[in-house]
Amino acid sequence: MRKAGPKAILFDVFGTVVDWRRGVAASCADVFQEKSISIVAEDFARLWRAEYQPSMTPIRKGDRPYVPLDILHRENLDRILDQLGLSSAFDDEERLALCCAWEKLPPWPDSSTGLKRLRKGYLVAPCSNGSVALMSRLARFANLSWDAILGADIAGQYKPHSDVYLRSAELLGLEPSHVMMAAAHNDDLHAARQLGFQTAFICRPTEHGPDQQTDLEPTQNWDQCVDSIEELAKSLDV
Amino acid sequence: MRKAGPKAILFDVFGTVVDWRRGVAASCADVFQEKSISIVAEDFARLWRAEYQPSMTPIRKGDRPYVPLDILHRENLDRILDQLGLSSAFDDEERLALCCAWEKLPPWPDSSTGLKRLRKGYLVAPCSNGSVALMSRLARFANLSWDAILGADIAGQYKPHSDVYLRSAELLGLEPSHVMMAAAHNDDLHAARQLGFQTAFICRPTEHGPDQQTDLEPTQNWDQCVDSIEELAKSLDV
Repeated sequence: MRKAGPKAILFDVFGTVVDWRRGVAASCADVFQEKSISIVAEDFARLWRAEYQPSMTPIRKGDRPYVPLDILHRENLDRILDQLGLSSAFDDEERLALCCAWEKLPPWPDSSTGLKRLRKGYLVAPCSNGSVALMSRLARFANLSWDAILGADIAGQYKPHSDVYLRSAELLGLEPSHVMMAAAHNDDLHAARQLGFQTAFICRPTEHGPDQQTDLEPTQNWDQCVDSIEELAKSLDV
Repeated sequence: MRKAGPKAILFDVFGTVVDWRRGVAASCADVFQEKSISIVAEDFARLWRAEYQPSMTPIRKGDRPYVPLDILHRENLDRILDQLGLSSAFDDEERLALCCAWEKLPPWPDSSTGLKRLRKGYLVAPCSNGSVALMSRLARFANLSWDAILGADIAGQYKPHSDVYLRSAELLGLEPSHVMMAAAHNDDLHAARQLGFQTAFICRPTEHGPDQQTDLEPTQNWDQCVDSIEELAKSLDV
């Protein structure tokens, strides 16, 4: 029997909808230039992002109470600056300003138009590990059109913990089987499928740079496998 | 010292942004006509709404776990139909359909343009007792433009419980003093001011019909007292 189409589509955001690497690098490059710091901004962005998953692990395990990603970004920044011997170069206010880099990420070329098109037929919301504060500001910067802001912050837990997906569907008043999770990351879709969600893999082969080794192709027969959000919209008949 | 302007504005929705009375009556009138039921639809809307506050009381008091407003609307509908001797006239599916009346409420004439204008200068979100599911569908119907959907459902509690206001501000990453609560109801603003929120009274003198007796004027010196969302935008310089 053919599966009934979804009523809502949830999106991973960092990497799937926006290009965090280019965005963070651009913000950092400006600051580094001002301060005559000779670090390649793209390398710095990757270092910062490398702290992302490990910093959520204690929360996922229940060893630390939930704090929004903005706080983890700040803690991770402090750690990286320490490691690079740059602690004295940034005061508190400058560090807070640098963290706002995560609110100023460019969309992939198809994201803005693709989401608008999808909203003609579906409820569309982020299901990101980013906070509501971060996501709502990023939506303005990147011209992203959402029906609601769902994800980690409203669940008080981080993906791929089941709470995040289930709470997001629950808040839309929908069963997981009526919701599609869209992501550029196979592990995100794996977690969602296990809970009964429909799945869409959106290939983003340069998220981590030109030498990316991961998520270059789907590792399962996801319900949709596409190269852009525009293509997803077309495939879902909107 | 002049108070610094807000960074975000939270809106009550039923009565403040949309005309629930006219909307619910219109949906009911259609159904009643089909079924040859001779009840005035406006009276029915008011009866249904009269159950609204009492149905939340046990949850506010902690005597009942939180359930979304959609469930309370349904329970209240069942009770009213019983009282009116109409139980046998509506099956389960028809009752569910009737509850969708709350997702199809017309905005006041200034709401859609007013919110769009406010968003030029502020983060703008509903802080309603309506669920995320209800609010996101209503936003489409009434052409309401929000940055996020906040309120009761993400707090697991009903206004005027402090959790709802505080959780909404927290999710925006803002202190209450940087957030303005806008409502047509003095008690809503009273609760918000006690928590340190800025306040805006938007007078809606026909929310309950032409003979409305309540909330015809501000009962405190709220930070803003206006007759429309457009006027609020003007007053806040956007």
